[in-house]
Amino acid sequence: MEIKFSERAKQVSNTATREILKVTEKPEIISFAGGLPAPELFPVEEIKAACEAVLNESGEQALQYSTTEGYLPLRQAIADRMEAIGIETTTDNLLVITGSQQGLDLTGKLFLDEGDTVICESPTYLAAINAFKTYNPNFVEVPMDEEGMIMEELEQTLQASPAAKFIYTIPDFQNPTGRTMNLERRKKMVELANRYNMIIVEDNPYGAVRFAGEALPPVKHFDTEGRVVYLSTFSKIFAPGLRLGWICANKALLEKYVAFKQAADLHTDTFAQRITAKYIELFDMEAHIQKIKAVYLSRREKMMECIKSFFPKEIRHSAPEGGLFIWIELPEQIDSQDLFDECLKNNVAFVPGKPFFPNSARNNTFRLNYSNMPEDRIVKGMKP
Amino acid sequence: MEIKFSERAKQVSNTATREILKVTEKPEIISFAGGLPAPELFPVEEIKAACEAVLNESGEQALQYSTTEGYLPLRQAIADRMEAIGIETTTDNLLVITGSQQGLDLTGKLFLDEGDTVICESPTYLAAINAFKTYNPNFVEVPMDEEGMIMEELEQTLQASPAAKFIYTIPDFQNPTGRTMNLERRKKMVELANRYNMIIVEDNPYGAVRFAGEALPPVKHFDTEGRVVYLSTFSKIFAPGLRLGWICANKALLEKYVAFKQAADLHTDTFAQRITAKYIELFDMEAHIQKIKAVYLSRREKMMECIKSFFPKEIRHSAPEGGLFIWIELPEQIDSQDLFDECLKNNVAFVPGKPFFPNSARNNTFRLNYSNMPEDRIVKGMKP
Repeated sequence: MEIKFSERAKQVSNTATREILKVTEKPEIISFAGGLPAPELFPVEEIKAACEAVLNESGEQALQYSTTEGYLPLRQAIADRMEAIGIETTTDNLLVITGSQQGLDLTGKLFLDEGDTVICESPTYLAAINAFKTYNPNFVEVPMDEEGMIMEELEQTLQASPAAKFIYTIPDFQNPTGRTMNLERRKKMVELANRYNMIIVEDNPYGAVRFAGEALPPVKHFDTEGRVVYLSTFSKIFAPGLRLGWICANKALLEKYVAFKQAADLHTDTFAQRITAKYIELFDMEAHIQKIKAVYLSRREKMMECIKSFFPKEIRHSAPEGGLFIWIELPEQIDSQDLFDECLKNNVAFVPGKPFFPNSARNNTFRLNYSNMPEDRIVKGMKP
Repeated sequence: MEIKFSERAKQVSNTATREILKVTEKPEIISFAGGLPAPELFPVEEIKAACEAVLNESGEQALQYSTTEGYLPLRQAIADRMEAIGIETTTDNLLVITGSQQGLDLTGKLFLDEGDTVICESPTYLAAINAFKTYNPNFVEVPMDEEGMIMEELEQTLQASPAAKFIYTIPDFQNPTGRTMNLERRKKMVELANRYNMIIVEDNPYGAVRFAGEALPPVKHFDTEGRVVYLSTFSKIFAPGLRLGWICANKALLEKYVAFKQAADLHTDTFAQRITAKYIELFDMEAHIQKIKAVYLSRREKMMECIKSFFPKEIRHSAPEGGLFIWIELPEQIDSQDLFDECLKNNVAFVPGKPFFPNSARNNTFRLNYSNMPEDRIVKGMKP
């Protein structure tokens, strides 16, 4: 049987990364590969209480179909969170989505025809690359340094690609590098977007998990023309299994997102939305986030110590003040895939850098995750 | 600001139907419009027990990221359900999705390039039309009678459109007509698909809710070449708010579905999957479905009585043996939109037929839902 796939389906394949992550799920592996939160911090008892309250108070509504936009009290709680970080918004500008990953897919749908250009950081989040790739765009990678995307490089890219559809950025504790864009560049990015009529897609899953240094306002804080689409999620501060994210965007954009969301899965899990809203009502989410930060700080400290003690001096690494990842740069001639193969023989895993580059990869790089392993296993896995 | 949308986004709009459904959510409205299950039948207490058991036994796993394919014990329970209706399958051929609506979107992604042809029943499910429309196909509608899609018409369509990508069918208690495809036609459809190298997408959300007559094997039961993609859901037999559906397909197809699912939302809500698996383990889902059937049968009986007593004799209607909907055909010259406007003045709503036809609508039709209204309100709403 010859199957008549779409052009996009002919190009999709089970990624090498997916295979890597499958290998690393084995319990004997010390994995610095995935981007998983520490499950021992999940507020299981509190969620049990929230489930019971929701089912007692509104069982019928909690299990029924609901509106595409999302549960209003949850959207209000999200609006409050947004205001606290410097984004003035109302529930009318918020759409609850099935994890912020869905925001990436919907963004591709909204903006990308085949051959369109996406401007992104180099490297960038691999599952964003995969989501956008569904719509067959070209990627233009803008170089970064430790302060985030370099604005002179971005401006040259905008001049060279004026028809590009959007700039995709993860300004806080970027995946995979852990780097944070500095304040001046945030302002500059909006200024450039205004000048070149560009949409900015600000993906911010990690911003709430800052455990050191000063918080910076999100890029959307500087948005005067409604051209920043802001994506975030409860996955890193509450429970990723519930698949709850959100989009904050101006009305002309949000209406299209709502229409595509409805076609994609009607609406986000009603029960998960109500559990989360109830948790926020009954418990102290900020106190819970403080606990997460304290643990991730210790784990990052431990991993940085190990890098300093055990890694050769010529290796470069990022020094994240939050989030889940450290980025390693090896000398040019070393391929991190070879290193991966070696480490796996010793039951240690990470993600080689290649899949984070949409075009030509810098193979001497890799990503380390510290949030998902206790300190003793970090030491055991990092030690030569 | 001029936004550079994709071509598909320029065409999408908030559908008239969505606006209708919003109006009908007001509590004073007697609504025969939506396709909502009866919420008073949701097993709220049992779900509470399932939540507690899941969080006690495996809280950390239930709230964590999980595999794209879905929770294995749930896939096993689905495989058992499939076997009971005559589809031999294993968990390897099953993917858990965010409601069967997501299966429609992923099907569009998998098969449809711009201008491709989808063959469907006339009329057909409006949210399937919307999901496929995202990928800008053409629709060819095949006429139905009370026994489902007419096979002679299908064969002519296949001859005229040999490059069509797939046949979309809802064989059991079709949405919107409530009609069921007879046994001979099911066999014939597979035979034609084999001869014309066509994929069949069998959408079967209602098959488990048969309250009269003899169950028929699904179209996929007759599939010898792995060309039937079967979609179903827990929404009509358990709780739609949890957004749990599944795809059963051969491996070459399922791998692509998995890759696109991962790009779309990583995986389906872990907690919802485990709650449902636990419910199936602890309680008797079949007994629960029997309760649903008994209530829907009474409501359909009541609505049929009302049609006989109150509607003019020249009106034609379907007589479903299951599912949620009755289809009404008015004399040619009457536009059901006018009737809708009249009824809404009296706080009664339904869905005019137009959005169920992807091309040229038969405006003298409309859809009635009986599952979501108690009998006294059915009588009140149907009475002149």
